[in-house]
Amino acid sequence: MISLSMINEYMSKLRDWSLEESAIVKNYRFPNFKRAMEFLNEVAEVSERMNHHPDITLSYNLLRLRLTTHSEKGLTSKDFEAAIEIDKLKDY
Amino acid sequence: MISLSMINEYMSKLRDWSLEESAIVKNYRFPNFKRAMEFLNEVAEVSERMNHHPDITLSYNLLRLRLTTHSEKGLTSKDFEAAIEIDKLKDY
Repeated sequence: MISLSMINEYMSKLRDWSLEESAIVKNYRFPNFKRAMEFLNEVAEVSERMNHHPDITLSYNLLRLRLTTHSEKGLTSKDFEAAIEIDKLKDY
Repeated sequence: MISLSMINEYMSKLRDWSLEESAIVKNYRFPNFKRAMEFLNEVAEVSERMNHHPDITLSYNLLRLRLTTHSEKGLTSKDFEAAIEIDKLKDY
């Protein structure tokens, strides 16, 4: 698990992620499905590299990523470190 | 829209899709995230080719596809034709 002060510090480093009770979530809108899939493949590469995988929802051009640490049943630093890496990707 | 008899005929051609009120749904389990993404990319190619895109949910190795025709607010033959093409892909 992770302290509230650490959560606040991490959240200040993220771009457009929302904090939920046990996860962080980001919604993306792309020009079309193809562009959304291109971005999703980059997210997949980051996920494999970090061995931490967001829950993914994709409806045509609308992508939602949700990071939580299933094994800990809540947020850990792994979620925020993955989000920081995802935020480095070109997402438009 | 589509008649009940056509729905029944289409359903008999599909492999492991469930009929919901206004959609058809299929759940897949892959050995890992990488294999799920590989399959998802093949589904994406079919979707672009047919210009009909399933709603996608991916949680590590568990993939869920949901086909509905948003513009018609329900099932149409486009959903079933897309499902038939998706069923031709190697999904394990």
